[in-house]
Amino acid sequence: MEIKIIGIKGIPLIKTGDNLSQLILKAAELQDLQLDNEDILVIAETAVAKAEGNLIHLENVKPSPNAIEIAEVTGKDAKLVEAIINESNEIIKVGPDFIISETKHGFVCANAGIDESNVDDGLATPIPLDPDNSAQLIREKLEKTTGKSVAVIISDTQGRAFREGAIGTAIGISGMLPTWDRCGELDLYDRELKTTSIAVADELSSAASMVMGQANEGIPVVIIRGVSYFKKLRNEYANIKPLIRPKKYDVFRE
Amino acid sequence: MEIKIIGIKGIPLIKTGDNLSQLILKAAELQDLQLDNEDILVIAETAVAKAEGNLIHLENVKPSPNAIEIAEVTGKDAKLVEAIINESNEIIKVGPDFIISETKHGFVCANAGIDESNVDDGLATPIPLDPDNSAQLIREKLEKTTGKSVAVIISDTQGRAFREGAIGTAIGISGMLPTWDRCGELDLYDRELKTTSIAVADELSSAASMVMGQANEGIPVVIIRGVSYFKKLRNEYANIKPLIRPKKYDVFRE
Repeated sequence: MEIKIIGIKGIPLIKTGDNLSQLILKAAELQDLQLDNEDILVIAETAVAKAEGNLIHLENVKPSPNAIEIAEVTGKDAKLVEAIINESNEIIKVGPDFIISETKHGFVCANAGIDESNVDDGLATPIPLDPDNSAQLIREKLEKTTGKSVAVIISDTQGRAFREGAIGTAIGISGMLPTWDRCGELDLYDRELKTTSIAVADELSSAASMVMGQANEGIPVVIIRGVSYFKKLRNEYANIKPLIRPKKYDVFRE
Repeated sequence: MEIKIIGIKGIPLIKTGDNLSQLILKAAELQDLQLDNEDILVIAETAVAKAEGNLIHLENVKPSPNAIEIAEVTGKDAKLVEAIINESNEIIKVGPDFIISETKHGFVCANAGIDESNVDDGLATPIPLDPDNSAQLIREKLEKTTGKSVAVIISDTQGRAFREGAIGTAIGISGMLPTWDRCGELDLYDRELKTTSIAVADELSSAASMVMGQANEGIPVVIIRGVSYFKKLRNEYANIKPLIRPKKYDVFRE
């Protein structure tokens, strides 16, 4: 049992309007890499946001009084705070140097997922407007061009509660379910598993992150090949929702 | 850039006193697999706990009044609750069907990491007493036998705040640092990264989990080969602490 995580090199800096699926296939070809059935492509959200032109021009943002207040508490730039508020359903917690909110998509994360790395000065990339839809459009083009059946995950690098360090995390998916519910399956001693649901899309995003890097590696797209559960989780209508814990079941929000 | 995640098949059900490093090397040999320099071995904590004989005989546990009270709130077995209390520094949150605590090691997780899957009936496996030490002993034996320089991670499958589904998570490490601090490195636009620390040990554990499975796959040990940051993070004295957010910086605990 072997899984390969293959970085696609040579994808140029992404600009608004770029056709990501075309850039991916071209770069893959240059390294003699063809897409296979059951390949899972993990794509960094910054690349998607840039291709979609979903950029925040921080100089044009007018901070509200609320943003100015939070900027004082957190020590963050008030324009950035206003952008975070705009991207959020709810500000959950603020403190020195941090803002944790629920994004418009439902993700609980720092800074509403707004990224100031790997984008031109004065710009910031929010999480794509509809990451599931972004993933679906890319998947459809890849499948149409190659005739292969693949899945696409849009990933972000996010911190977590209780643990230090950020990890690759899934924010959009197309072509496969993001969780694998193993309840009812048997363990090594033939006993039924009671509660195990595995967040496979997050595990795949973390695995891809090992190759992508977050600095100047220039590898925004990774192919994961050889995942045994692909067929079991194949689904044309999957989205990221099963990974988001509904607020009513969230025991850490006040 | 390619990383391989290779499952080691044919490791028998682990019993108390088993020599894990020997079992690993023997099983690897049967599939024509030799350890290489810079290999990272991820080992499921259940296998370590069983080899170390660190098992809880639930029938022998006497529930305290506190355990009985929490058992009523959570609907969990009072003996299991008592075992969770014994494994914990602090019970953080309880509710229908869940107990979140800080374990004796400092990990915030559900059920103090006590596992009732993949162990004989009536038994449960807590997190190993000192997972860093477990990792170190295995690493030293592997390195002595093979002459290769490797790292060992002990992994658990844990849930998270705010997101559904469990993921592979590191609880012990030897031979490399668990986090990669990238502050000061440059992004694609030659700007300094300000805050990016990557929890590589958690990403490696999640990647390994894609091959291990949590049911009856019988693959408790995985080799990750081709990780580019191995040399940079190589450290003989590393431990898991950098991954644990100190309580004073934890914004979600009341």
